[in-house]
Amino acid sequence: MKVNQLVYEINDINLENDELMLYETLFHNANGYIGIRSCFEEGYEKGYNTIRGTYINGFYDIVEMKQAEKLYGLIEEKQAMLNIADTQSIELKIDNESFSLFEGTTLRVRRFLDMEHGITGREVLWRSPSGKEVEIIIKRMTSFYQLSLFTIEYSIKAVNFDGKVELLSYHIGDVMNYSNPDDPRVANESLKHIIPVDVDCVNGASYIISNTLVSGLSVCTGVKHILSKECLEKMDLLVNTVTSSYTFDIAHNETVTLTKYSIFSDSIRHKDCKENAKAEMTKALEKTLTEHYSHQADYLKEYWKNTYLEIDGDEELSLAVRYNMYQLIQSVGKDEHSNIAAKGLSGEGYEGHYFWDTEMYIQPFFTLTEPGIAKNLIKYRYTTLEKARENAKLLGHKKGALYPWRTIMGSECSGYFPSGTAAYHINGDIAYSIITYYLATKDIDFIADYGAEIIFETARLWMDVGNFYNGQFRINEVTGPDEYTCMVNNNYYTNACAQFNLKWAVKFYDLLTESKKISHVVDKMNLSEIEIKDFEKASGCMYLPYDETLKINPQDDSFLEKKVWDFEHTPKEDYPLLLHYHPLCLYRHQVCKQADTVLAHFIFEDAQSLETIRNSFNYYEKVTTHDSSLSTCIFSIVASKLGLTHKAYDYFGDSAKLDLFNTHKNTKDGIHTANMGGNYMAIVYGFAGLRLKEDGLHFAPNLPLQWDGYRFKVNYEDSMIMVEVFKNKCIFTLISGTGKTFFVREKEYRLESSLIISQ
Amino acid sequence: MKVNQLVYEINDINLENDELMLYETLFHNANGYIGIRSCFEEGYEKGYNTIRGTYINGFYDIVEMKQAEKLYGLIEEKQAMLNIADTQSIELKIDNESFSLFEGTTLRVRRFLDMEHGITGREVLWRSPSGKEVEIIIKRMTSFYQLSLFTIEYSIKAVNFDGKVELLSYHIGDVMNYSNPDDPRVANESLKHIIPVDVDCVNGASYIISNTLVSGLSVCTGVKHILSKECLEKMDLLVNTVTSSYTFDIAHNETVTLTKYSIFSDSIRHKDCKENAKAEMTKALEKTLTEHYSHQADYLKEYWKNTYLEIDGDEELSLAVRYNMYQLIQSVGKDEHSNIAAKGLSGEGYEGHYFWDTEMYIQPFFTLTEPGIAKNLIKYRYTTLEKARENAKLLGHKKGALYPWRTIMGSECSGYFPSGTAAYHINGDIAYSIITYYLATKDIDFIADYGAEIIFETARLWMDVGNFYNGQFRINEVTGPDEYTCMVNNNYYTNACAQFNLKWAVKFYDLLTESKKISHVVDKMNLSEIEIKDFEKASGCMYLPYDETLKINPQDDSFLEKKVWDFEHTPKEDYPLLLHYHPLCLYRHQVCKQADTVLAHFIFEDAQSLETIRNSFNYYEKVTTHDSSLSTCIFSIVASKLGLTHKAYDYFGDSAKLDLFNTHKNTKDGIHTANMGGNYMAIVYGFAGLRLKEDGLHFAPNLPLQWDGYRFKVNYEDSMIMVEVFKNKCIFTLISGTGKTFFVREKEYRLESSLIISQ
Repeated sequence: MKVNQLVYEINDINLENDELMLYETLFHNANGYIGIRSCFEEGYEKGYNTIRGTYINGFYDIVEMKQAEKLYGLIEEKQAMLNIADTQSIELKIDNESFSLFEGTTLRVRRFLDMEHGITGREVLWRSPSGKEVEIIIKRMTSFYQLSLFTIEYSIKAVNFDGKVELLSYHIGDVMNYSNPDDPRVANESLKHIIPVDVDCVNGASYIISNTLVSGLSVCTGVKHILSKECLEKMDLLVNTVTSSYTFDIAHNETVTLTKYSIFSDSIRHKDCKENAKAEMTKALEKTLTEHYSHQADYLKEYWKNTYLEIDGDEELSLAVRYNMYQLIQSVGKDEHSNIAAKGLSGEGYEGHYFWDTEMYIQPFFTLTEPGIAKNLIKYRYTTLEKARENAKLLGHKKGALYPWRTIMGSECSGYFPSGTAAYHINGDIAYSIITYYLATKDIDFIADYGAEIIFETARLWMDVGNFYNGQFRINEVTGPDEYTCMVNNNYYTNACAQFNLKWAVKFYDLLTESKKISHVVDKMNLSEIEIKDFEKASGCMYLPYDETLKINPQDDSFLEKKVWDFEHTPKEDYPLLLHYHPLCLYRHQVCKQADTVLAHFIFEDAQSLETIRNSFNYYEKVTTHDSSLSTCIFSIVASKLGLTHKAYDYFGDSAKLDLFNTHKNTKDGIHTANMGGNYMAIVYGFAGLRLKEDGLHFAPNLPLQWDGYRFKVNYEDSMIMVEVFKNKCIFTLISGTGKTFFVREKEYRLESSLIISQ
Repeated sequence: MKVNQLVYEINDINLENDELMLYETLFHNANGYIGIRSCFEEGYEKGYNTIRGTYINGFYDIVEMKQAEKLYGLIEEKQAMLNIADTQSIELKIDNESFSLFEGTTLRVRRFLDMEHGITGREVLWRSPSGKEVEIIIKRMTSFYQLSLFTIEYSIKAVNFDGKVELLSYHIGDVMNYSNPDDPRVANESLKHIIPVDVDCVNGASYIISNTLVSGLSVCTGVKHILSKECLEKMDLLVNTVTSSYTFDIAHNETVTLTKYSIFSDSIRHKDCKENAKAEMTKALEKTLTEHYSHQADYLKEYWKNTYLEIDGDEELSLAVRYNMYQLIQSVGKDEHSNIAAKGLSGEGYEGHYFWDTEMYIQPFFTLTEPGIAKNLIKYRYTTLEKARENAKLLGHKKGALYPWRTIMGSECSGYFPSGTAAYHINGDIAYSIITYYLATKDIDFIADYGAEIIFETARLWMDVGNFYNGQFRINEVTGPDEYTCMVNNNYYTNACAQFNLKWAVKFYDLLTESKKISHVVDKMNLSEIEIKDFEKASGCMYLPYDETLKINPQDDSFLEKKVWDFEHTPKEDYPLLLHYHPLCLYRHQVCKQADTVLAHFIFEDAQSLETIRNSFNYYEKVTTHDSSLSTCIFSIVASKLGLTHKAYDYFGDSAKLDLFNTHKNTKDGIHTANMGGNYMAIVYGFAGLRLKEDGLHFAPNLPLQWDGYRFKVNYEDSMIMVEVFKNKCIFTLISGTGKTFFVREKEYRLESSLIISQ
């Protein structure tokens, strides 16, 4: 792997099947609306596996999910993100020899992701079995500027011959989803859920309309080709597949380029998706490819400006973090119909579902860098609030809303409720993300219009799920973040989240009352003063378990009474444990899949003394396997807080390289978006110690020994602030906006232009 | 319903579909090996539902049971009892008018179960649409004497005409199981799991051989007809169905009888089931039907002698109890390949699975009345011990055996483990049944040969599942009998069972050591003295939760901290709650489906003071819905113990009529065998207060106000004892065997011939 500022590249291609599938993910193109895995245009050798997927964020079908035993309220159907079409297939024949890296000789090859220009590419110098040498340069782009557009620029240069070239380009509607019956993290059964129903050719562009089998949705894909020279052109139009062929003579040293425009449109966003696709195609063709590239670069210039983060002295990690940030903007939905899936738009792991990953791992990044996107993510939850109310009813609650553990369009898709629906903390996570958005922006109008209703409905749910006992408010039978312990009483994290949610329900009620913005919410929700008083009471006497002997917060009421997992005698190949041990066996032991109480110590650091947090960290560190990709980044952040910078760096390093080094061995199914957000957090919230609190912005900067320094920008209220951390000092610079008061290690400072603080 | 000593009958037939399905169950014929539901031989009207089933105990196919989310160790296939054939179908045509209760006029009708003679019957006086009157008497028997044999005696008497009669009798191999996708208590999907592969005719008998789809088993059914007069006889032999027709003239007042012998044989018990079926057919035909009837009556005479129980002054309840006892002998397997299913052989509810019902509700009856059968039931568990060891491994245990929650051939069939596999108390239940069998019989050789190995392996499992904490031995993450609270810590019932199991493991070790019978067990199991010491230690410091405030035993560590279910605002139609509330909602509340701690108070009455038991009873009574059929009988027993005889009587009455009055509305799917055993227990263990303890037999007789008296016989060691309870006295009579010391209300007595004790 060569390292350069904004280019991730590989210069030799390992043709092992597993590697190819890994790179399908790592080099995928996406823009938050569409995502296309980076398969070879010409395909692989026969017998190879591939996940040749193209996805639209939020576009789904409904799939049956039968329960082994039927019980009331168990979910029996789920939404699944669909592979909607294949427009990336292009075959190249030179005098009847087909181009394939599995044949002939590959003289040179490079694959790259250029994050400055927003394109991926493959450059090959190839010698055919008969000795013809050809240089092939393929560039692919999903436009951030026109979200419906995916382009492939396919250039061929005849290096040592004159000959006849045939390009066969496909537009395929007959596609299926990937499945693996042995892995619980991807779909069990292959889906044939999209049915091409119509094909048409308009102004030389082909359009295939497909309907979903159950959900009643439609998608239209359009494909148009432009060849840089005259040729013999043929189009074969079938409802399942459109084949376009281009035959021409190529001369020694001549370069010929095929540009393939693909347009995607769906019936969730557009009443008539075919008409919309045609309009988008017209719009796309109004610009040259060069102009499109230029818009793409402009978009990213702005993005990199807003999300600016640099590390001095650690180029590899620096690139890894930038790669992660690039994937986040590729993955995140840009409208209220979509969110950010656990695997973004890069693969089918977790079936395109949205989890708490958004609110707890990704939104903290956008809140500080692109608050407009954070706002959209909250709007998505607002759009699906009614579904959350229905879900609460299904669970037997008389009031409130319960967000689904995993979903696309808002209804629960979790088939195993003990580590799905029972994770009630999702409500608190969503509330937390709204509150921190408010703390960063002070956007009270947004709270009035969207946030408050969610906060009040989730607060209502806590009142219904919890109960007063011995003067304490307790929450029984829920699952915390750690899925190796399910359906417990008084999970510390959950109770802390609920407390925060309830407390802020009261605060927002007061804030909106003061600013005379409360009445429409009160009317709409039939919210009473008594309820607000109850929120206050429950929040005030929320039970947060504490163990006097160990002086830690137990993960739940009975966690510490359980046997500690026998780590010493657990062979390496038994990890991740969930793939090798029955849930009951895991549940019965002290063993954590991921940060749980430690996560609570990060986000609610003022709830406990530093000593308790330190004890907890030390305790949970010993019993946590980090089998979840959401774990090490949080341990890194809390290690930073505890001054364990070296440890924080190690955790961060493990975390940051997860996908690029495929350390969890499942990146072929897609990137780990939450982990990517977590890596950003490990720097900004971790090393730099940023916190959004009621009294303002806080920092507690540390510098890992391995680094010379690091710097990043954050948005706070109306301002943009640059933070630079060096060995002996940090520099805070007001880049735009008004002056701000803030805290460094609890000491107050006033920033008007620039401040240097010695470490 | 008319009442007579040993006849249950109805004298009018309601042709409602639901009623007909109910009576299919109530009048079914079974003998512990085969069971045939009592459908009309001629079928019902078009569009009617029916469960036209014929079953062999322990004969199964393997059925896929996909998990909605795949997790390690979750069960994905189950055994299911199969409907194997239909040999009960007979059509009657009189001058081309078909006999049907849905047409013509039914002038008289009677259906009966004669429990003295072991036959069911239907007697009809019917007038055809054209006015021909015919008396039809049909008697059916599954022989207790020859278990493979089912007979139908079909008599026709022409009352007012001369005419031509055609009888069409079917032998159908092409059958399916019943299903109801909306009820979790029966199969979701209809099964076509038995495939007829061969048909043959030997000596006028037809034989159909069918194979199961997956489990690799075969079954052979043989049918032979004998008509009482000469006729025109035809047989049409297809692999799926054999049709035999008998055409003859009948004269005014003449009676003609068709006798249909059906033979069933399976490849679990017989290497060549066709050869065996032929041999069994030969054996059956060696006797006249009258001789078969006589053997049947002899068998039952002995059964009613051994299980003797009479109630004076309550004929209806008396009949109900006898009905229940009859169903138990119909249902219980008579060999080590089978046990007693939750629905016996009367229907497909719970798919023919064996549960803890056997050990805790049915075996206590057989232990006292037919110890040979109790022994067989234990042998079945011994046969499947290896499967239980495998199950323990699957659950992550390093040693021991864990019996499956529901099974046919020994492997787990529970699809939803939180209220299935997690019910580890099944181990303690099986141990308990062995220990009480020993206490009743002192059969130490049986313990040496079978019982001890089970006791030691289950004890080992407790050591692996539990852990020492704060000087106590604790058992986390299990489900007790009450399925409305799952995966809890220190379920009182489970811990008490485990303690008893461990304690007796030590006792049996000592007893077998003394009698020099331990060595083969120790060798086989590699059992060490250290393990025995550990059993002793864990048993000695077993944690049995006790609440100082309420002075009761909490059901588990957190039960009392939960919200009490809002019974007041729960509408009647919401019961049973499991069909109307999400499991999480139930689990979060104080609400019990059934006796849990109260059951522990019955079987381990010396573990707590009477005051604690009284407090517990009062407490749990308020939060128990009795949605399980296993509940009220236990409440009745403990009410008896507490001197609440009136309350005990009410609970007993509710329980005893469950099937005959279809109070749970699902008797169509089969009888509730555990409830039936429970009713016996409510009298003998309840009203009479019988207990099997180490120091001997205990009684504490009470007489319900409604009764004049009751009496029953029990086997104890080598003796049979008659117990008679009247208003002011009880009489104990030694019927056979040697004299015994026993206790009445803790006072010791010596019984040599007869004893009268004033109440």
